[in-house]
Amino acid sequence: MKFELTKSFIEDIQSALEENNIVFIKAQIFELHPADIADIVKHLGLDEGKHLFDYLDEEQAAQTLVELDEDIREKLLELFSPKEIAEQVDQLDSDDAADLLGELSEQRKDEVISKMEDKEHASEVIDLLRYDEDSAGGLMQSEFVQVRSSFTVKRCIIELRKQAEEVEKVYSIYVVDESDVLLGVLSLKRLLFAKPTSLISELYQSNNIKYVKTNSHKEDVADIMKRYDLIAIPVVDYQNKLVGRITIDDVVDVMQEEAEKDYQLASGITDNVEATASVFKNTKSRLPWILIGLLGGVLSSLILQNYEADIQINPVLAFFIPLITATGGNVGVQSSAIVVQGLASKEFMFKGIFKRILKELLVGVLIGLICGILIFLFNFFTNTDIIMGITIGISIFIVVIIAAIFGTLFPLILNKLKIDPALATGPFVTTTNDILGLSVYFMIAFMLYN
Amino acid sequence: MKFELTKSFIEDIQSALEENNIVFIKAQIFELHPADIADIVKHLGLDEGKHLFDYLDEEQAAQTLVELDEDIREKLLELFSPKEIAEQVDQLDSDDAADLLGELSEQRKDEVISKMEDKEHASEVIDLLRYDEDSAGGLMQSEFVQVRSSFTVKRCIIELRKQAEEVEKVYSIYVVDESDVLLGVLSLKRLLFAKPTSLISELYQSNNIKYVKTNSHKEDVADIMKRYDLIAIPVVDYQNKLVGRITIDDVVDVMQEEAEKDYQLASGITDNVEATASVFKNTKSRLPWILIGLLGGVLSSLILQNYEADIQINPVLAFFIPLITATGGNVGVQSSAIVVQGLASKEFMFKGIFKRILKELLVGVLIGLICGILIFLFNFFTNTDIIMGITIGISIFIVVIIAAIFGTLFPLILNKLKIDPALATGPFVTTTNDILGLSVYFMIAFMLYN
Repeated sequence: MKFELTKSFIEDIQSALEENNIVFIKAQIFELHPADIADIVKHLGLDEGKHLFDYLDEEQAAQTLVELDEDIREKLLELFSPKEIAEQVDQLDSDDAADLLGELSEQRKDEVISKMEDKEHASEVIDLLRYDEDSAGGLMQSEFVQVRSSFTVKRCIIELRKQAEEVEKVYSIYVVDESDVLLGVLSLKRLLFAKPTSLISELYQSNNIKYVKTNSHKEDVADIMKRYDLIAIPVVDYQNKLVGRITIDDVVDVMQEEAEKDYQLASGITDNVEATASVFKNTKSRLPWILIGLLGGVLSSLILQNYEADIQINPVLAFFIPLITATGGNVGVQSSAIVVQGLASKEFMFKGIFKRILKELLVGVLIGLICGILIFLFNFFTNTDIIMGITIGISIFIVVIIAAIFGTLFPLILNKLKIDPALATGPFVTTTNDILGLSVYFMIAFMLYN
Repeated sequence: MKFELTKSFIEDIQSALEENNIVFIKAQIFELHPADIADIVKHLGLDEGKHLFDYLDEEQAAQTLVELDEDIREKLLELFSPKEIAEQVDQLDSDDAADLLGELSEQRKDEVISKMEDKEHASEVIDLLRYDEDSAGGLMQSEFVQVRSSFTVKRCIIELRKQAEEVEKVYSIYVVDESDVLLGVLSLKRLLFAKPTSLISELYQSNNIKYVKTNSHKEDVADIMKRYDLIAIPVVDYQNKLVGRITIDDVVDVMQEEAEKDYQLASGITDNVEATASVFKNTKSRLPWILIGLLGGVLSSLILQNYEADIQINPVLAFFIPLITATGGNVGVQSSAIVVQGLASKEFMFKGIFKRILKELLVGVLIGLICGILIFLFNFFTNTDIIMGITIGISIFIVVIIAAIFGTLFPLILNKLKIDPALATGPFVTTTNDILGLSVYFMIAFMLYN
């Protein structure tokens, strides 16, 4: 039940574009959802993509632009004249229009705006451009339906007819007073069943309605809408005047970005790299973490230098360096990940950090014991030097516990410092655990052998 | 604009519960959203939590149960009698009811169902219990509004009044034929503006409406709803008969789980561990990865054994083991993460795996060069043995490239094998890269020194 893009389909489109086979292309395209057309454009050359736009109706073309990945849209828009872009922007909801304009250079932006035909729309969009893109104001759209509480149902429906023209999807009607202050919400369902003569003030729901301020952070908006299962939320300014609404589809995108960001931080990638990003951008966003790791490795080597003699006498010590570092790293990352997700889902707000650490300590002891015993046994059967077995066994035990504790504390500290705790699950924890682990390991070896 | 739970609030509630201060509790609770009440329950003792339910109205109580985390709900429900649970279930939408019943033991489930008063509701719920919980059937609810295409608007609104009773949120109306086969969708907005005499068949939208089959996988449902910005999607059976609908809030939860799962796999945690999970469950879900890492460490040690002599002669070799393993691991995980996200967002379907690997190769060469040179320089200035610098420099260079390639290939292979590629970003890649890296490093050392 979902359009499946195939290689042959793309090839058909491409040849049709070459031959300017209007009929074929229109037939293929006209019923497709913009998201699907965007997918096609993505797999065409830039010029082909631009060419395809000539065959789309205004609405389709505009929506397709919105659905494209930013990097492709950017390249593609360079092939559009300001006039052409303005035509698209005129078609878009104010929030999409603002996002699109926000990606253009200042100068180009002004050119496009000056070419927009719908002046009222243009001024709405300009208003939205003022807001920080990470704020509710940056997410909201100016298209929504509002009525006065003093209206009758009949009058309300007439109002609705007027306003609903430009509002693509009406989920609920916002009720305001004379000075546009948000009073409450009215569902279409209730309106549909109400007597034409009854007053809105008798119908709408006013107690604890959910709304956000224009300066609320987009992640808080997402939290609220998710928490209360909302499909749209009204946005008010500092005077509680209704200025916009945010719909769930935009919030779904925010959640998506959030999840991807955490995942990337956990994998040691600084800023969003699509698989399609250039080699250089790709490298740039990955190098920082690698260099941190490199630095960690250098520090480790400096630590090991102090034990040069011991290694020379007993090279077996060196054999287990990877085991120590790997195990410490793995345990640490796990601990951090659990804390990060706990923080995200607000699982332990005031539930006591201490309790959390205590539990993690127990887990550490358990895992440490199992690993320590296993590794001791392995040594016992493969290596005549029993002290080595004891050394590595005890070391693993302690390293695991330290890693668990550190992996738990670190994200909590970051969180206190208002730094994204997901950073903790990145290479940083692994690196630190390498250093901690090796120090412990060789200290113990030093004690047991000398 | 969002209820903020405070420690003192919890304490007030607790003492009020002790004193059976009905007035106070009612006053605190009655306007709260179930999600907020669930939050309160979470921070109360089990018995206190159960006690609080006595003060909630039926609707609140039922919804609060739904909002609770599964593990807490499970414990709490043990304090409820089958009769009490049945009363809650009667209040719930069919999908929530089915989910709740699905968590009970077979025997308890039957007891509860037998105690349900709304028999029609009960049979709907029983139907839903038949579906796999990962399928659209497992997500859908039986509450939706459907009308015949032959109806007039007037008749339709009357129908609506009847049906809308039990349908909490009406987003759009589904149009079916005499045998309930889905024909199309009609928005409330259009209905609101239509003449009472006009026919539904003239109003509803029929071309490429989005729907899913009962057996579609929930992740595909999520993809479709996200892709097409839907807030609700109809579900049809194998005969295309309309049997239910899935609303965006349920899909948002699916997306959330998905993201968390990937993140956990990336951090080496097998199945979902909330921070609140028991020490044992916690350990159980983490141990597998740790043991894989342990095994990897053992293998590394066996590889290193072959170079015992070299390490004895030149212990400096050992100093850089952590550097080699850490760098290889970090690069590998990055490469995998990028591929995993690329796969998730379907970025390179037929865009050529080869192209992808080539690019990754270039990135690897770039990062490898930078790291290799840096580490060579570090050695050059801190260590008289120039060969050591060359050895480690070249090794890092090669290790990074191998890690990048392997990290890219591995998730692609998993994906081909229909295994979740996110597994690749877990400790597995790091472990493998440790082994590969060390082999390269010591082989090169062996060649250069002998």
